[in-house]
Amino acid sequence: MEQQYKDILDLMRKCGEIIKNADRESIAIDEKTGRANFVTEYDRMVQDKLNQGLSEIVNDALFVGEEGETNTFSSKGKYFIVDPIDGTTNFIKDYHMSCISVALMKDGEAVFGAIYNPYLDEMFYAMKGEGAFCNEKKIHVSSEPLSNGLVLFGSSPYKAELSKKSFEVAYDFFTKALDIRRSGSAALDLCAVAAGRAELYFELNLQPWDYAAGSLILTEAGGVITDFEGNELVFDRPCSVLARNGVTEV
Amino acid sequence: MEQQYKDILDLMRKCGEIIKNADRESIAIDEKTGRANFVTEYDRMVQDKLNQGLSEIVNDALFVGEEGETNTFSSKGKYFIVDPIDGTTNFIKDYHMSCISVALMKDGEAVFGAIYNPYLDEMFYAMKGEGAFCNEKKIHVSSEPLSNGLVLFGSSPYKAELSKKSFEVAYDFFTKALDIRRSGSAALDLCAVAAGRAELYFELNLQPWDYAAGSLILTEAGGVITDFEGNELVFDRPCSVLARNGVTEV
Repeated sequence: MEQQYKDILDLMRKCGEIIKNADRESIAIDEKTGRANFVTEYDRMVQDKLNQGLSEIVNDALFVGEEGETNTFSSKGKYFIVDPIDGTTNFIKDYHMSCISVALMKDGEAVFGAIYNPYLDEMFYAMKGEGAFCNEKKIHVSSEPLSNGLVLFGSSPYKAELSKKSFEVAYDFFTKALDIRRSGSAALDLCAVAAGRAELYFELNLQPWDYAAGSLILTEAGGVITDFEGNELVFDRPCSVLARNGVTEV
Repeated sequence: MEQQYKDILDLMRKCGEIIKNADRESIAIDEKTGRANFVTEYDRMVQDKLNQGLSEIVNDALFVGEEGETNTFSSKGKYFIVDPIDGTTNFIKDYHMSCISVALMKDGEAVFGAIYNPYLDEMFYAMKGEGAFCNEKKIHVSSEPLSNGLVLFGSSPYKAELSKKSFEVAYDFFTKALDIRRSGSAALDLCAVAAGRAELYFELNLQPWDYAAGSLILTEAGGVITDFEGNELVFDRPCSVLARNGVTEV
């Protein structure tokens, strides 16, 4: 692995310590637009540390972060897409299911992606064309059909009009699979499918920082990812996500 | 804490190592009655180790385990109610969300309960009248109303006729709370409510080994647990479970 990617993983592990050791008695929480959409001082602290560290590691790359106020996506050149804490509601609740997600985009596509779960000390990462890994061990999607599969789903809590449909689709998948799970972290759900721990994940509305790194990890692990209509994902605006091991047509 | 309880926690930690270090390439899986209802050689191995160890620690107690074939519940005397792996589907899938649950019953009520999550190395336990703990730190349910709460739910995968209703109830709670989660481990869900990481948990059909330890941990942490109609839980046959921090009437 190139030194710059090793440096990114080291930086993410350090940021993971901040999340894991957060002083839970005094977390300052702000509400963003929409339901259950929060940001904490820790989201901002981790994003600032990533912004500074990443700009030192890859100094010709721009930076797009969930907590940024002036994000500009670009189809030319290099930029990072970063979610400092994916699963902020879980983080606020101390539910132990949050992660850091970093993708390096080049000319509009992800060339490197990493997702770190500090609670389990699991680092998922992928380089385009070189496979996907969890803590240095190669990972691959499962070969189980949906009928023997776990389905992970997001409830689109920020978009009330999509939530009811999300539950209906989840129940429909439930009847075709073993069972469903809802973790509250899109990035960790994509890693779970990539590592063969689940067979399918869907959510009807996500932001690019939720899936930029995870989509590369999933495809490098042999999985298939599209929007809910089967189109290629876009990385400059929100879209729906359907990720799977590719064994069963859906 | 009495020495015998310390010995039980040590035994459970050792069993946790077996779960965490399972040889994932060669897990033998049997299907029990009903959908998504599995047992592995590891469930049986951990249950045997617990059965032997617990009978040495408390030698006048009977033993009831999920994987037993001749379980006899009793309203007199002492017996253990044990789930060697709660979250067996997660264990098979390597989804990192399973635990060991041990309750000591005396004359029909739980006097000691412990639940161990080997992935996060978290040991939840309670002695009747002496509070509830996670890794030696006292825990308490949250003081958040449901409107600012996380709702955890079970999908009753083994009882198809209850699954549809489970999704309907989950959606109804979703509209009243921040969001929902589904972990696939009833025992860990009860611990999450007990530790203030979530505000409510429900499942429409559970077995006593799913909730015997968790119900004591929850009530000792200040929570409220009943069946779905508001009646006291029973420990000699399946029932529904509604666990909450008690802040919002439901």
